[in-house]
Amino acid sequence: MNLRDESTFRQWDAETFPGHRVVLGHDKPLRLDCGVELHDFTIAYQTYGELNADKSNAIVVCHALTGDQFVADPHPVTGKPGWWEMMVGPGKPVDTNRFFVICSNILGGCMGTTGPKEINPDTGKPWGLGFPVITIADMVRAQAMLLDHLEIDELFAVVGGSLGGMQVLEWAASYPDRVFAAAPIATADHHSAQNIAFNEVGRQAIMADLDWCGGDYMSQDRWPNRGLAVARMVAHVTYLSETALQAKFGRRLQDREKITYGFDADFQVESYLRHQGSTFVERFDANSYLYITRAMDYFDLAEKHGGGSRAEVFRDTPVRFCVISFTSDWLYPTAESRRIVNALNAAAANVSFAEIEASFGHDSFLLNVPEFHRVFRGFLDGAAEHRGLPRANGGENGR
Amino acid sequence: MNLRDESTFRQWDAETFPGHRVVLGHDKPLRLDCGVELHDFTIAYQTYGELNADKSNAIVVCHALTGDQFVADPHPVTGKPGWWEMMVGPGKPVDTNRFFVICSNILGGCMGTTGPKEINPDTGKPWGLGFPVITIADMVRAQAMLLDHLEIDELFAVVGGSLGGMQVLEWAASYPDRVFAAAPIATADHHSAQNIAFNEVGRQAIMADLDWCGGDYMSQDRWPNRGLAVARMVAHVTYLSETALQAKFGRRLQDREKITYGFDADFQVESYLRHQGSTFVERFDANSYLYITRAMDYFDLAEKHGGGSRAEVFRDTPVRFCVISFTSDWLYPTAESRRIVNALNAAAANVSFAEIEASFGHDSFLLNVPEFHRVFRGFLDGAAEHRGLPRANGGENGR
Repeated sequence: MNLRDESTFRQWDAETFPGHRVVLGHDKPLRLDCGVELHDFTIAYQTYGELNADKSNAIVVCHALTGDQFVADPHPVTGKPGWWEMMVGPGKPVDTNRFFVICSNILGGCMGTTGPKEINPDTGKPWGLGFPVITIADMVRAQAMLLDHLEIDELFAVVGGSLGGMQVLEWAASYPDRVFAAAPIATADHHSAQNIAFNEVGRQAIMADLDWCGGDYMSQDRWPNRGLAVARMVAHVTYLSETALQAKFGRRLQDREKITYGFDADFQVESYLRHQGSTFVERFDANSYLYITRAMDYFDLAEKHGGGSRAEVFRDTPVRFCVISFTSDWLYPTAESRRIVNALNAAAANVSFAEIEASFGHDSFLLNVPEFHRVFRGFLDGAAEHRGLPRANGGENGR
Repeated sequence: MNLRDESTFRQWDAETFPGHRVVLGHDKPLRLDCGVELHDFTIAYQTYGELNADKSNAIVVCHALTGDQFVADPHPVTGKPGWWEMMVGPGKPVDTNRFFVICSNILGGCMGTTGPKEINPDTGKPWGLGFPVITIADMVRAQAMLLDHLEIDELFAVVGGSLGGMQVLEWAASYPDRVFAAAPIATADHHSAQNIAFNEVGRQAIMADLDWCGGDYMSQDRWPNRGLAVARMVAHVTYLSETALQAKFGRRLQDREKITYGFDADFQVESYLRHQGSTFVERFDANSYLYITRAMDYFDLAEKHGGGSRAEVFRDTPVRFCVISFTSDWLYPTAESRRIVNALNAAAANVSFAEIEASFGHDSFLLNVPEFHRVFRGFLDGAAEHRGLPRANGGENGR
């Protein structure tokens, strides 16, 4: 695979990104699940819309593994549209004429929030593998500290897909009194053996790259781009369905009439994957990839909050849930969502569930799937009515 | 991942392996699909049982991607039992009291048959990437030349799973008059976009390893073991079903009570995958892995033999088929086998089809699945009766 000039990744400095940035944990550090106390860490975040007078219209959007805070803004490195522009904005299902949307880069990320790429204030050097191993609960606690800083006691809703959905579940489990409504999408309440396996392959691909340097590549100005690209490629295959791959590429050749009897990207699907790998390394940090996938693997809601029982996690929860899965998602298949729904039902929680017919695989939650958008909008509108939020003003809020 | 001392792989020399070896293509070279003519190439093979007087009891067993000729003998490097000992032997479904079994290491392989690891007679150096890119049809043509050498005109049967099944299909399509019965197992008549994608990830993992040296690692005495191990790991995930992984490992921890908040193999599934990777590199050549996966991706039976139509491939075929798939195989799912069966039916061929209930995923064809063994034995026994082969003698042939 031809990786492009590596300078793009090397040059960008999250300090120069647009958006908000706050240093938290100065007086009271964040106590991580691993036992380490993290002080003076930065959270980078974006907001959309206006917080209303009684601060009752805030929605936290939680991003996925390689997502970021730029939900509905151009990505500062790639210039591409925000990753959920279809969903968040004026008149969109997450209607910024009505709601105040907050999205922060997760702890361990590489878009401005403290993670292995950032400088350890105690040493003046990049954290690298010295960064403590974090959990989904740590990510959510950091977000809660951000809300404290913003003086928002209760969220109208927490929403997100994939790893974002795990954060949603953790929010509802850890802070039931701070969450009115929760929408975990295309997710699971623990990682299956297969999901751990795919993540482990990605990590091994990164760590196999000699330029990874035991995690210390930044200090040595070497970049494990080949390994990170392979990690992205294998993950990307799991994000799509076989049907989607077949429809999108089949066995079609890339800019050629015949196979070349060689190891070039003869097939479109090869060319596509190589492109996914080579562009990913321009915007993502290899160590962040290790830390975030590790947090996903460690996620086990029932073990942490329910003494091993799913139903115990949400006993007497006041949160109202909308669980959404997609028929062609084999990374977080509908069966995983059903387990969550069954547990919520067993806890007599207020829950609706929709399995959306879509052929795009796990990525469906990021794509144009009208039925999904309709269901999601309906849930938020209904919850907003229960919460007593006024309807949106302005011209773009019609459906 | 801790790769073991690399000396094992470096030391072994296929010349020292037990079994037969023949040099073919001296007078008449093998013309490959890519146009290259291969002369003086070696085929390493094993045989089991005795060829009968009229040479009517020969079965060719075709091995899979990382298989070899040691079907029912200990592997000369690892010492492990033959990869299909459960299936091939006295009294086994492929009964060596009755049948004469031939299994040759495929062209491009690394167990004695000519491949990128062997010496190019024209240069005196290892072929490396100078080896021509081969196809499944090339592999089968080389096997046919071996049969010419053994003076066997017609095979009683050709059988094999996965890549082995592709060879079976190619045998039946290319040499319908030399094959009485054919059993393609857990396979497909072309590679889907998803299968190409997973193979491409594996190839990129190998080529990303700096020790791959553009394919010239042997000359430089460097070994791309890290990349090859990652390739094996990702492939291995696709060989198992999610159910099998969950049953075998779930979220169980490896020799520890608690997660360690680090990147060690906390989970059993991680430890297992790392072990699969690190042991694989002791017995397999990285370039062979590239060439063989490429041949699989290029495989498209209908395009090669049917002008794009599956039914045309086997029009008027005299071969009798038994197509077998497994319920939990998501790499070569039952739908792929059904396509083959439908095409055979459309060609009015003699075909039986069995979808075997098994939870082990693609690997089911290598494992103890009694229903599979029963069906397979039944097909061979029935075909043998039609062929007029006598029943086996000896004490071990009873069922």
